Amino acid sequence: MIVVTGGVTAAKGFLASGLSAGIKKSGRKDLALLYSEVPAVAAGAFTTNVFQASPLKISKVHLSHKMHQALIVNSGNANCANGKAGERAAVATADYIARALCLDRREVLVASTGIIGRPLPVEKIKCKVADLVAGLSKEGARAFSEAILTTDTVKKECALKVRIGSSTVTIGGAAKGVGMIYPEMKVEKHATTLCFITTDASISKAMLASSLGEAIEESFNMASVDGDMSTNDSCFIIANGMAGNKRIADKGQDYSKFTAALKSLTTELAKKLVKDGEGATKFVTIEVAGAKSRADAARIARKTSTSSLFKACLYGEDPNWGRVVAAAGSAGVDFNPGKADLYLGGVKVLSNGASVKFDTAKAMGLFKKKDIYIKLDLKYGHAKATAWTCDLSKEYVEINSEYST
Amino acid sequence: MIVVTGGVTAAKGFLASGLSAGIKKSGRKDLALLYSEVPAVAAGAFTTNVFQASPLKISKVHLSHKMHQALIVNSGNANCANGKAGERAAVATADYIARALCLDRREVLVASTGIIGRPLPVEKIKCKVADLVAGLSKEGARAFSEAILTTDTVKKECALKVRIGSSTVTIGGAAKGVGMIYPEMKVEKHATTLCFITTDASISKAMLASSLGEAIEESFNMASVDGDMSTNDSCFIIANGMAGNKRIADKGQDYSKFTAALKSLTTELAKKLVKDGEGATKFVTIEVAGAKSRADAARIARKTSTSSLFKACLYGEDPNWGRVVAAAGSAGVDFNPGKADLYLGGVKVLSNGASVKFDTAKAMGLFKKKDIYIKLDLKYGHAKATAWTCDLSKEYVEINSEYST
Repeated sequence: MIVVTGGVTAAKGFLASGLSAGIKKSGRKDLALLYSEVPAVAAGAFTTNVFQASPLKISKVHLSHKMHQALIVNSGNANCANGKAGERAAVATADYIARALCLDRREVLVASTGIIGRPLPVEKIKCKVADLVAGLSKEGARAFSEAILTTDTVKKECALKVRIGSSTVTIGGAAKGVGMIYPEMKVEKHATTLCFITTDASISKAMLASSLGEAIEESFNMASVDGDMSTNDSCFIIANGMAGNKRIADKGQDYSKFTAALKSLTTELAKKLVKDGEGATKFVTIEVAGAKSRADAARIARKTSTSSLFKACLYGEDPNWGRVVAAAGSAGVDFNPGKADLYLGGVKVLSNGASVKFDTAKAMGLFKKKDIYIKLDLKYGHAKATAWTCDLSKEYVEINSEYST
Repeated sequence: MIVVTGGVTAAKGFLASGLSAGIKKSGRKDLALLYSEVPAVAAGAFTTNVFQASPLKISKVHLSHKMHQALIVNSGNANCANGKAGERAAVATADYIARALCLDRREVLVASTGIIGRPLPVEKIKCKVADLVAGLSKEGARAFSEAILTTDTVKKECALKVRIGSSTVTIGGAAKGVGMIYPEMKVEKHATTLCFITTDASISKAMLASSLGEAIEESFNMASVDGDMSTNDSCFIIANGMAGNKRIADKGQDYSKFTAALKSLTTELAKKLVKDGEGATKFVTIEVAGAKSRADAARIARKTSTSSLFKACLYGEDPNWGRVVAAAGSAGVDFNPGKADLYLGGVKVLSNGASVKFDTAKAMGLFKKKDIYIKLDLKYGHAKATAWTCDLSKEYVEINSEYST
């Protein structure tokens, strides 16, 4: 597996474009198109939020179709809580693209991100369809990854190559999301984490969906900026088979290699989201080990990753580890607190549930770094999980108290 | 039921004191004592956090004793994650008071709040026991309610009188807590919400525990400042029978009247905590109605009360109600999003799951007030619940990034 440059057009046969359609008041890019030169299979994972945006509903219907070739995404408007009009708007958007590219409407997937509860300006989108299509190119990946951003400060792309059989398969992707980040996406069930992945692998639709499910569980679904789950979280993968590998149709060695590569890609993208988290000045990795099950470890790691108190002391570069302990203990998971060890970086601060004397200067030094690593070892079982989060800064509050107005 | 002035000494036969023992670096009051002139029954509710502070462990053991007469509490140090030494320190504290007041050690309850993972300075406490006892008085309620504070800006007291049979019963209390506030306390199981309630009601220990459980479920357990559950949350009630009412020994009319009064008191104290929440500039009431069960309604209301995004837009006085919808839908409770209505104050912004045109100026005006009321009607059942929270301000981040150093 090797990392290469590029994003959604790194794999063979994919083109992309992005432009400003005037959905965002700022005039920044807000509409993007992704296109596969040949028919492809696709899979999607969506938010488990009860309130679900219209484009998700429509994409889920469209995913029951066998093949897909295009995906349109807008930023600046979530098209959520718009009732039947919202669904009509999402269908219309897919329809414009289908007509322009001579596709069946169901071959087009849709996604949105932005403010909730405002009508999607479909006329603005309609006017830009011709430009979007005309702009499709390999270089368009850059405009694509810019047009999907909201309060993000940088674009998030990643691509890698993996050898499958005698062929080289490329997987590339772009993601957005720096706030309302606490995804819990499920494949074909129900992320404003948006992630678009393309690959030239030859793989069955069922195996693609399964692989995506495995990949997001330990990547996007372990990332948190603010603990707020979006109504629009979506992660799509489109596979067009142009790498010419032997088609992956079961969970054999090739599936495992593909899934491992995909997990690397989604993990990298998930970390990029957290690093660019709204107002973030720190990136924190929380590993929980020694749990009875991976689910228990994940629950504790995720609960800790959402503690406002812990995140505030990270911002203050203050190794107030008691807040980690308090958050971990409130996850609703049973363990023996009298056995737990806690490490800040390499510094052990809790041993068998009791505080130990430690080098305060060293711990404070660790908290001055941008990358912070925390490990909680429950010594209660053999399962582990890792979550990623950022600090809670005054800038986060500033950004989010000024968003919609 | 009438509200009267006073706190923990409003009821007959209770005395209190508070002073500085030098546990807090600031030199502010940090040690308090509560005393009943006659033996009394007591009940306690404690945090459900797996990591539980030493004083909670000791108080739980002591509560198995029949009668109680004193309670000592310190602020500035949580006596949590201190292992066996922490438990010995909590026992020693109870012991000092028992000796000074000629009580059995088990008749003394203990509580702590402050930083986690630092040894409790028992010698400082020991030196002040004589002064604490000498200071016991009716007027001492003021010093008591000051000495239990940490980052609180005001003391929180409440007292009321209720007619039970031919007698007038008084219930009074003091509480602290403005951060790490997301209690989930259970009676005799396992709140750094601290609450101390006294009453001169004559009531059996079992009925007192039951009444406390009912009262906290819809009061403290529905309050949130930051969604962080403490290792030290504790709520105590001590009843000394001096009102002379017919002893409440079953769940009859007198029990109901007493419980209703107690619930009024704990609700008032819970609201006072949220209003003084760290950095809070707004007080928000979130009512969820039309749920299948009270538990479902409570889960949605509580989840919404912890949304950093919603709390940040409250700070910005921005009626970005989409964040309420997103938070409510992520509570893990099933309902039909297509039936839900949302009101900001009296302004309907969502009808049957779809946004409606509303008077933006009026909604913005509502968000400029200090008290904000939000109602989500699921129209899915007949149960409801109310939660209270505050906004997420830059001051919150400032306070919590500077706490321990």
